[in-house]
Amino acid sequence: MSLAESVLTGEQRSLARLLTEVENGTAEGRLALDELFSHTGRAHLIGVTGGTGTGKSSLVNRLALHYRHPETGKSKRVAVVAVDPSSPFTGGAVLGDRVRMRDLAGDRGVFIRSMASRGSLGGLAQATAAVTQVFDAAGYDLILVETVGAGQAEVDIARLAHTTLVVEAPGLGDEVQAIKAGILEIADILVVNKADLPGVAKTERALKSMLGLAHPVRKVFPQHGQTPSDPELERDEAPSWTPPVERTVATDGTGVDKLASAIDRHARYLRRSGDWARRERARLEVELEMLLTERLVGRFRAQVNERRYQEMVDRLTRRELSPWAAVDLLLN
Amino acid sequence: MSLAESVLTGEQRSLARLLTEVENGTAEGRLALDELFSHTGRAHLIGVTGGTGTGKSSLVNRLALHYRHPETGKSKRVAVVAVDPSSPFTGGAVLGDRVRMRDLAGDRGVFIRSMASRGSLGGLAQATAAVTQVFDAAGYDLILVETVGAGQAEVDIARLAHTTLVVEAPGLGDEVQAIKAGILEIADILVVNKADLPGVAKTERALKSMLGLAHPVRKVFPQHGQTPSDPELERDEAPSWTPPVERTVATDGTGVDKLASAIDRHARYLRRSGDWARRERARLEVELEMLLTERLVGRFRAQVNERRYQEMVDRLTRRELSPWAAVDLLLN
Repeated sequence: MSLAESVLTGEQRSLARLLTEVENGTAEGRLALDELFSHTGRAHLIGVTGGTGTGKSSLVNRLALHYRHPETGKSKRVAVVAVDPSSPFTGGAVLGDRVRMRDLAGDRGVFIRSMASRGSLGGLAQATAAVTQVFDAAGYDLILVETVGAGQAEVDIARLAHTTLVVEAPGLGDEVQAIKAGILEIADILVVNKADLPGVAKTERALKSMLGLAHPVRKVFPQHGQTPSDPELERDEAPSWTPPVERTVATDGTGVDKLASAIDRHARYLRRSGDWARRERARLEVELEMLLTERLVGRFRAQVNERRYQEMVDRLTRRELSPWAAVDLLLN
Repeated sequence: MSLAESVLTGEQRSLARLLTEVENGTAEGRLALDELFSHTGRAHLIGVTGGTGTGKSSLVNRLALHYRHPETGKSKRVAVVAVDPSSPFTGGAVLGDRVRMRDLAGDRGVFIRSMASRGSLGGLAQATAAVTQVFDAAGYDLILVETVGAGQAEVDIARLAHTTLVVEAPGLGDEVQAIKAGILEIADILVVNKADLPGVAKTERALKSMLGLAHPVRKVFPQHGQTPSDPELERDEAPSWTPPVERTVATDGTGVDKLASAIDRHARYLRRSGDWARRERARLEVELEMLLTERLVGRFRAQVNERRYQEMVDRLTRRELSPWAAVDLLLN
């Protein structure tokens, strides 16, 4: 039985081993991914991003617990991928072994994986995409991808997700929030965690006013001759999506049920509006482009004489040649 | 006279125009860069990175002022490139028109340029590299590249620099500092700004202990049969570089002279040890690779039938084909 086949049977050790192979970009990992690809496309990918001090990790923990014990009695399988792009050199996962592991320890329906960047950002986004594919194929219903901070790395990783949560907390300062205008534009749901702290109303107001700037015009469905939107329409049937702001207290679970409902509502909205399929397609197109680029560059470098290449770099350092002229020479 | 030639004569309006062309990646900008390349390689590139609230922008202001009025009486020309990678969508520069502009307004020896990301991180690093080349060719002696935050974007941009400053401030919390372990590894000089605030000694201690982790083994010069290092050696002649921790108060200029001395000492260290040339070469090699990749992918996409490409993506979304299989089909 191949590694991919063992993973499909639900064998946890094989899953852990495959994740390592995939993270390290080995040939075995690549072959298994290829084999598993036809089993992907079922999971709901949820990106969770926000700065340090927002309690984002505890919130992800609570969400995972929620899906394991939903009021409906129907448990879902949950994977958590905790990505730390701010640690590019050490390779040590700051997010390592967290307190939350205790709540979820022994539950085979939850799998937590920490990832640290190894050198290149592109590499991290690619490895994260590959790891989510493995969980997807292995039958996990929800995949929570958690990233620290609000930089470009987080934006790139959030683009992987169907639903993106941006987590804030009261009292982190207006300056910090101003810097996050970029990340707000990718938010599908905003969360004010630590909502038992003073200043929660102020933070919520600030987020709502920034949301107005970040989402000035919302695309409105239905289009193309369908009936115009009805103001009396049920919230669930609304033809467009305005990111809601949800308050939570991750430490005691307050507001987590309501947040989970908002996530489910967003999934239904995505399917109804066609955005689910559009996001899937965009994601797969990016992946194809990344692989193509990798292969094209690899093929070229295998073909060009390494000594000639290094001579070009020498001429660049002596300023005898510009980088553009060097590219022309190498390609002709 | 070409745009590049006007820039070489020191014409400020042409400089501003060329920076815009280069930022927008136009053909005219690319041609001018090609023409200017042989005039580059003289400037000292200084990266300045750190989180919000550290007073980093004021510090850059003070440094620029320092080089304009050095005690030696010999003024240097200074360019400031303020990069904001956390605002990838709006295109609005959070760093826009800052207070410091007032101190430096009317001084033709200082040029300040704000840049915001436009979509891709790779694009931002590339545009920043191009902008520094323009300043370098235009005869600016020092180019201060300032970035917000501590994510991968900042690390990538810092890699451009000969000397990287990481700015901290007292009281920003241990958690925030823990996350910055990655960025510490690229620091050549650490700055504790706002050193008039309580907690400065604690912050300095924390940084020093983290430095120990980030730089556990320092490469030691001399190598290859030179005499071993002398413990009595002058600090300036030290055979290896241990990042110093400098205290500053940017608002009143305290410590800025000492910081500038550390920067000069680092430049001399780089030249003596051969690291200056090594960093130059590594930087140019990365640039060549980026341009090659761009060209290879562009050439391939021009060659492949767009409808065929989109059909491949369709087959991916239906999971009939894996991305690896699609790449194989497209390349054969």
